[in-house]
Amino acid sequence: MIKVFGHYSPDTDSTGSPLIWAWYLTQIKNTPAEAVLLGQPNTEAKFALEHWGFEQPEILQDLGAGTPVVIVDTNNPDELPKNINDADIQGIIDHHKLVGGLETKGPIDITIRPLACTATLMYELIGKHMAQAPRGVKGMMLSCILSDTLEFRSPTTTQTDRAVAHALAEELGVDIGDLATQMFAAKSDVSAFSDAELLKMDAKKYKVGDKTFRISVLETTAPDQILSRKDALVAAMPAVAAEDGADEVMLFVIDILNEEATLLVPNDLVRTVAEKSFNVTVAGDSIVLPGVMSRKKQIIPVLTQ
Amino acid sequence: MIKVFGHYSPDTDSTGSPLIWAWYLTQIKNTPAEAVLLGQPNTEAKFALEHWGFEQPEILQDLGAGTPVVIVDTNNPDELPKNINDADIQGIIDHHKLVGGLETKGPIDITIRPLACTATLMYELIGKHMAQAPRGVKGMMLSCILSDTLEFRSPTTTQTDRAVAHALAEELGVDIGDLATQMFAAKSDVSAFSDAELLKMDAKKYKVGDKTFRISVLETTAPDQILSRKDALVAAMPAVAAEDGADEVMLFVIDILNEEATLLVPNDLVRTVAEKSFNVTVAGDSIVLPGVMSRKKQIIPVLTQ
Repeated sequence: MIKVFGHYSPDTDSTGSPLIWAWYLTQIKNTPAEAVLLGQPNTEAKFALEHWGFEQPEILQDLGAGTPVVIVDTNNPDELPKNINDADIQGIIDHHKLVGGLETKGPIDITIRPLACTATLMYELIGKHMAQAPRGVKGMMLSCILSDTLEFRSPTTTQTDRAVAHALAEELGVDIGDLATQMFAAKSDVSAFSDAELLKMDAKKYKVGDKTFRISVLETTAPDQILSRKDALVAAMPAVAAEDGADEVMLFVIDILNEEATLLVPNDLVRTVAEKSFNVTVAGDSIVLPGVMSRKKQIIPVLTQ
Repeated sequence: MIKVFGHYSPDTDSTGSPLIWAWYLTQIKNTPAEAVLLGQPNTEAKFALEHWGFEQPEILQDLGAGTPVVIVDTNNPDELPKNINDADIQGIIDHHKLVGGLETKGPIDITIRPLACTATLMYELIGKHMAQAPRGVKGMMLSCILSDTLEFRSPTTTQTDRAVAHALAEELGVDIGDLATQMFAAKSDVSAFSDAELLKMDAKKYKVGDKTFRISVLETTAPDQILSRKDALVAAMPAVAAEDGADEVMLFVIDILNEEATLLVPNDLVRTVAEKSFNVTVAGDSIVLPGVMSRKKQIIPVLTQ
């Protein structure tokens, strides 16, 4: 049985895309496959699972050597089990930059495209067989696209993401605005999470100069709910950074509706990096960055250049 | 202007596929692109260029940082310019296993499929626009497929490679047997090459246990022309290995028509590796391996396991 999974700290795309592809492999390609997760899905992903009638996939505890796997929504070994290269990697479907480090035993199917969302690419790869997809699979695709594009607000959004989402919404009879509002409300309800959990929820490690930063992003329609916990979040940063072998945590709170990010600035190192990267002057312990919505397009490129 | 290129020591696929893709980018996608080579094409590739009416592409001397490039027929940094990751890699089209090591600045188009030939994959990617392809582009595609599949004899051949080749041949009014015979005759005429040049013509480095081997393959319809030079080839091996930082050269002479390989066995190390890998007993200074045609499918997997 092939295991299909996305990255650690699963968001909606990394939760939904494995379910979509496992359906395709099993039902269309006659290759039994099951979706699994590499951690607890976030609150938006949980909402999407329930909304479209899926059981939550099991969380992978241990990846046995030689296990056949398809990796979706990442090609970064740092976001995957440590022994990923001992698995029998049979496919990779992704929309991120190639970081290097994954190796396969033989030639396999690898498709990476500069789209906003893995599910959009799957829609294209599945092609005419989409006609056979059950409502849940189509609905999950739509949720993945709305999540990754922040309802088309993110600059990562392509015409293809937009067109696929509209086609799915029309076919399903779903109002895109309503669905996105429900999803973003689910994502914004972070009251149940500790400060450390919030910092780790959607974090990726990057080299910035000679330092390693854990770049955390929280997309929300209720930024005050997070920013009111600023002091506690800053206090939790050193331990979270150390746990992950990073020097610093940079937390960007993305205000989806106002289309801006607030970066917490706990110390001089982050201040210096922020001022240089975003060409701003930081006065207090945070800085608002108008228009910044995307780690991939607007944060990482300026930090690492 | 985007530069499109394949690997060092260009064979027909690494010479032809850049020309095919440069045509597609320039004429169909309105993105000016030119094919270049990373070395002198082999005699079969030269024949194909002339046969289908192409000028030989320029040989890339120096890859400037930031140059926009599309890499075809490899994803292995060892087979590409040393500073490849400083280029602006805009696409990768390949049919080899993922080895890791290439990095891109952002998300780009990457398509890897387990087909015998890059040109087959390009035929699929170009899709309906193939109708606009000039005769030379279609002919070069056919030559690439016949070369990489050894006229469908190689176990790497898939139904897709076969179907695409037959469709192209029919459309072009070309007899596949005739064309393949001319191509293989061109490839087999190695009289102009020195022993060292022969060893380097189609060589890839691999780790075998704690040693590094340069695995050289010569596909030919006239194996005697090469095997009659056995002593001189063996004498040239240590210098060729050293030049490339390898411990040994293993030379497999592939007899295309008789579908067998002859491995030269110059010393005990190669003998031990050969006996263990191919489950044979080596009596003299060479061993015939019936049915072995493909480095990718039949040589590398047993050597490195």
